[in-house]
Amino acid sequence: MTGALMAAEMASQPEVLARLVARAPTDTAAVQAVVPRPLAGVVFLARGSSDNAAVFGRYLAELCAGRPAGLAAPSLYTRYHADVDWRGYLMIALSQSGATPEIITTCRAARSAGATVIGITNEPGSPLAAAVDLVLATEAGPELAVPATKTVTAQLAVLVTVTAALGPGPAVADTLAGLPAAVDATLADPGPAGELAGRWRAIDRLVVAGRGLGYAAALETALKVAETTGILAEGMSAADLYHGPIAAVYAGAPVLLVNAGGPADADVAGLRRLLDGRQAETAGLPVPAGLPEAAQVITAVVRGQQLASALALARGADPDAPAHLTKVTETT
Amino acid sequence: MTGALMAAEMASQPEVLARLVARAPTDTAAVQAVVPRPLAGVVFLARGSSDNAAVFGRYLAELCAGRPAGLAAPSLYTRYHADVDWRGYLMIALSQSGATPEIITTCRAARSAGATVIGITNEPGSPLAAAVDLVLATEAGPELAVPATKTVTAQLAVLVTVTAALGPGPAVADTLAGLPAAVDATLADPGPAGELAGRWRAIDRLVVAGRGLGYAAALETALKVAETTGILAEGMSAADLYHGPIAAVYAGAPVLLVNAGGPADADVAGLRRLLDGRQAETAGLPVPAGLPEAAQVITAVVRGQQLASALALARGADPDAPAHLTKVTETT
Repeated sequence: MTGALMAAEMASQPEVLARLVARAPTDTAAVQAVVPRPLAGVVFLARGSSDNAAVFGRYLAELCAGRPAGLAAPSLYTRYHADVDWRGYLMIALSQSGATPEIITTCRAARSAGATVIGITNEPGSPLAAAVDLVLATEAGPELAVPATKTVTAQLAVLVTVTAALGPGPAVADTLAGLPAAVDATLADPGPAGELAGRWRAIDRLVVAGRGLGYAAALETALKVAETTGILAEGMSAADLYHGPIAAVYAGAPVLLVNAGGPADADVAGLRRLLDGRQAETAGLPVPAGLPEAAQVITAVVRGQQLASALALARGADPDAPAHLTKVTETT
Repeated sequence: MTGALMAAEMASQPEVLARLVARAPTDTAAVQAVVPRPLAGVVFLARGSSDNAAVFGRYLAELCAGRPAGLAAPSLYTRYHADVDWRGYLMIALSQSGATPEIITTCRAARSAGATVIGITNEPGSPLAAAVDLVLATEAGPELAVPATKTVTAQLAVLVTVTAALGPGPAVADTLAGLPAAVDATLADPGPAGELAGRWRAIDRLVVAGRGLGYAAALETALKVAETTGILAEGMSAADLYHGPIAAVYAGAPVLLVNAGGPADADVAGLRRLLDGRQAETAGLPVPAGLPEAAQVITAVVRGQQLASALALARGADPDAPAHLTKVTETT
């Protein structure tokens, strides 16, 4: 009842990631064998934490594949019974449990209408695995804490592999090689997140902002904080924050800024200067230097896990079993 | 300084909408003349309030065109200089001012890579209009209050026309015919929003949830409330709310639920029962019965405008000129 499960699952991430990095050449070949050519587009299908991984994948896929990418709207299939021609599309479905009914329904609809579907799941025996053309398991082992941690970083790593396989970009080994060690170093340094959690112990709202690949880490950090603490935490694109929601950032309002080590960091820095000028309570968390951007984003997600866990403990809550949440959410 | 500008602009909506409904047959023909065939996909490009209109368009486009639709990520073009093949795609760019630099940059990149681009703007002489294949003006007249109102409902109405033109669905006249009168009736009935604003005068956070087409109205209502009041208002898919963020809805937490009159309303009703069971402070606002779903969503957006304006006034703020916001946001 003290976050021991979540802590153990976070601690296993370097090992899980090392396994996935080692498997990357096999995954690359498997993806390349099923991708439709010519490729009309790439669509990601997910909910919850997996939806944040999907945002990460969506940016990488458009960059790597050189074709537009986007996110599916499951209600179009579960509620509106949309009749859509999916020929030429690659759909990438993400579900830790592989059991969310609306994900399975949408997968089946798209596949029967011509999409090629890759499923990324922690449960290779799940209904999702039976509904797709290719299953890539995250092999993270059972996840018992309610907030997803190791399954999320595993999804992100698999997404780096899958999207790199779509195009002529740098070999995935170059992107991920340093990741397990970087996550290990991040986990060995809980101080910065712990200090920030102490400072922010009493907050009841939080904005987490990032841009580009870092946007996904902002969304995931906000979700993790909301889940473990009940704080109304909202992840936002640094660019969207300028367009109206900035009115909700007043003097003293807590804003966490995510740096991804990429070309959008200048925008995040500009936002921070603007917010500091308004006396908002801005903060950042350190991430290892020298990693490729996609890998740095994964370490930023780990920083967010540390913050969520430390905030829950600082508030007397149990990060393993947040109030009113269950592990598999049966939305249809 | 008492919201007079915003009130006048809201009041002009029936007239603006009637003009756009009358123009729909011409717009339909113009759209059909430029749509690429075969159509690979449809992508919407926007920021701020226009981004919420884009979510509405994204659902309608996938339903009407029968091809996948999605939202663009501008930073891929302004920051990452992505090299993407846009052949076969229809891009629909939305910008009230037609002057947001990142929208223009992304439009130009997609168009030069093969996309056909339709621009929807209130400023037919703007840089956006010069960067697209077809301009559809919202003809809403100058908008002087900072929170966008009449330009947003005008965008939504034009999107109904544009997306209907992509497919064999019901004639757009059937969808929009009753809209101007329904918006007029909604504006003549400010009581429900005023009463809710009185009850919620002191809130500092708000969740607005919808699903399907109603999701866009939830996002727009949350943005309008955040802009006019500084309340941290978050728009959410009713389905996403189940997946973690529901931990942030405690006894007494205010949640506005949006009904769209469509097949996803049962999910919104189910969410409301769940939240009521947790003693959250749920509320809804009435919308006219008997309208097609897309038109009902537009009246729900007007309800959200009423709530945002009334909340600002109840808190002693000026809805016309919220603190720290300017009309054109120069994100790049």
